[in-house]
Amino acid sequence: MSNLREEALQLHQKYQGKLSVNTKMSIANQRDLSLAYSPGVAEPCKEIFKDREKVYDYTIKGNLVAVVSDGTAVLGLGNIGPEAALPVMEGKAALFKSFAGVDAFPICLNTDDADKIVEMVKLLEPTFGGINLEDIAAPSCFYIEERLKAEMNIPIFHDDQHGTAIVTVAGLINALKVVGKSLSEIQVVVNGAGAAGIATTKLLLSMDVQDIILCDTKGAIFEGRIEGMNRMKEEIAKQTNKRKRQGSLVDVIAGSDVFIGVSVAKAVTQEMVRSMNRDPIIFAMANPDPEILPEDAKAAGAKVVGTGRSDFPNQVNNVLAFPGIFRGALDVHATDINEEMKLAAVYAIAELVTPEELSEDYVIPAPFDSRVAPQVARSVALAAVNSGVARKMLVR
Amino acid sequence: MSNLREEALQLHQKYQGKLSVNTKMSIANQRDLSLAYSPGVAEPCKEIFKDREKVYDYTIKGNLVAVVSDGTAVLGLGNIGPEAALPVMEGKAALFKSFAGVDAFPICLNTDDADKIVEMVKLLEPTFGGINLEDIAAPSCFYIEERLKAEMNIPIFHDDQHGTAIVTVAGLINALKVVGKSLSEIQVVVNGAGAAGIATTKLLLSMDVQDIILCDTKGAIFEGRIEGMNRMKEEIAKQTNKRKRQGSLVDVIAGSDVFIGVSVAKAVTQEMVRSMNRDPIIFAMANPDPEILPEDAKAAGAKVVGTGRSDFPNQVNNVLAFPGIFRGALDVHATDINEEMKLAAVYAIAELVTPEELSEDYVIPAPFDSRVAPQVARSVALAAVNSGVARKMLVR
Repeated sequence: MSNLREEALQLHQKYQGKLSVNTKMSIANQRDLSLAYSPGVAEPCKEIFKDREKVYDYTIKGNLVAVVSDGTAVLGLGNIGPEAALPVMEGKAALFKSFAGVDAFPICLNTDDADKIVEMVKLLEPTFGGINLEDIAAPSCFYIEERLKAEMNIPIFHDDQHGTAIVTVAGLINALKVVGKSLSEIQVVVNGAGAAGIATTKLLLSMDVQDIILCDTKGAIFEGRIEGMNRMKEEIAKQTNKRKRQGSLVDVIAGSDVFIGVSVAKAVTQEMVRSMNRDPIIFAMANPDPEILPEDAKAAGAKVVGTGRSDFPNQVNNVLAFPGIFRGALDVHATDINEEMKLAAVYAIAELVTPEELSEDYVIPAPFDSRVAPQVARSVALAAVNSGVARKMLVR
Repeated sequence: MSNLREEALQLHQKYQGKLSVNTKMSIANQRDLSLAYSPGVAEPCKEIFKDREKVYDYTIKGNLVAVVSDGTAVLGLGNIGPEAALPVMEGKAALFKSFAGVDAFPICLNTDDADKIVEMVKLLEPTFGGINLEDIAAPSCFYIEERLKAEMNIPIFHDDQHGTAIVTVAGLINALKVVGKSLSEIQVVVNGAGAAGIATTKLLLSMDVQDIILCDTKGAIFEGRIEGMNRMKEEIAKQTNKRKRQGSLVDVIAGSDVFIGVSVAKAVTQEMVRSMNRDPIIFAMANPDPEILPEDAKAAGAKVVGTGRSDFPNQVNNVLAFPGIFRGALDVHATDINEEMKLAAVYAIAELVTPEELSEDYVIPAPFDSRVAPQVARSVALAAVNSGVARKMLVR
């Protein structure tokens, strides 16, 4: 780890960051200058002035995503502020380019005021073709995303919510095949009611999972609970935990089929795994240390275990989702990333594990599987067209 | 021109804009991913969290300029809005990279409310090392720049004001050598009281020019004039036109030594040139058609004529100034682009025309003279250090 630390610092310092802005055409003489800049540049300007949609033909907007953060919930580091968040946002932008050819640019904002962030991001709409919200603390992140989706005409996607939810659920679909259970019959416990926990719960609800209990640090969330609630938890409480079970994680995990952890290291013991239904499925995604180590979970009877880490099997890595999702959305000039598109991404990822490949140690494709982003993009673009949010048809 | 039009449109459409965002390090395997992103990226984040200045060591901020516009005064096209302005801002960013290696990124804002623009640009401070304001209409541009300079800690530069002023005055210094006059003895008429006219007037005032009259569409501006004034014109009126001459451009140009036009085509006649003092100097920078064509001005007795066009001698092109100015400011982590730095740029540009090269048709270096940007950068960086706005010493 100390080796990784030194190498990471050196690499960032050597290049002074990870991104560069480059020109796609050479500007080496007067003729180049008169085409790329004055007076030639006036021509695309006039075309766009006549028909604003032409901004997609003559500018970078159509392939450009802003990676927007206020630095309030960065990795496992917490509220470290916008400057310290910049290396992560640059990294995210680098992944967009490397995995899906999307030009992405980091915007770290000098405020954590949700309304200011909304106002600000709305002002960016002429420049960007999409907005990826990143590392913004809950519950602000829910409010910001909701308002931007309602008030802007380009795709908005809070990756910490939906990216994690999509990849987790893709993995869960395959894990259920391994243990021979179906979505509609399982009992799921989600631990952690931040961005990822809420979004995963909502996605499962939309997929016909009947029995979910969401837990936070105060234990099971149920309708009518008073302590530690917010608007989003209230909303979730109405749709989950129908038997209004109360108590701590230890109490509600007993008898469940699936544990999804987006919480803290060591939140789950072997005892708790033993208390679950037959062939437990565990997604222990706390970073860097999972809720329970895979070998411990397995020893206690878990059948399939996923984590956020690359050194264990079944890595839940958002890079499987966001590059292809935006690629697909941008390709058809989608005005939104809606539920249909998210579901399309879930199934595209899940289906990349063939029946022959499927095993308890391989329910999720590997991050560098080069089939993933194009497959996700194609499915998402098609879902955008079919759900009526594409402004452009897909050219095959 | 129709050929240029078609070629410009084709070029912009072919590449879908002029910029791309690229990664400076390859992300091709798990090891790369763990260095550029999670978990390695946490290390530079933690260093910046401990010491915010380290954002210059580990991120792109130190080489990154935002090209910000609201699209209210684009080229000669006027208020065409932020989408239609995007090709120009991309072009500007491309020039930053091509001429000085500065990473620059276009931000076209969905508002023309000056206070909103100020609030918004302030929020960008964690990400960008400098702000180039572009094509924002007067008088808003003055207010926006003034507030941002006061309220932000990175260099702010409205190129339409200062870029034009700096290159014009550099050319004027050399033109005066040709005709054997000095700054302190000349009488100057500036026509056009927008961004460029105001800034050129202020720059000349700071350089000991005693006798300047600024004109707008209502004629000479003088202290006490009522019609068509604004705060900036009031301020200028106090420092210029000491004899409070009134009347139109025709009236005040008579007897003057220098005409600087940032106004409209055909604003100056041969008769007006003939009414000037001996060896008139004419900078006729209206675009695309100058206030008077060089051959007409020359035929009427003008000694040195400059325009904004590349097909005539003495082209006043901002590309001689802004890339080197930001290069120099960024190199020393300057907190401002102050008057000392602007003056340093003026003299650096002027001095690139050697006494041997100097002639009435060569008072300004050519745009693709590769000595310009490095020389301007060096002078500007030194001026930043000497005037106390550099946070980092210059490494030679």
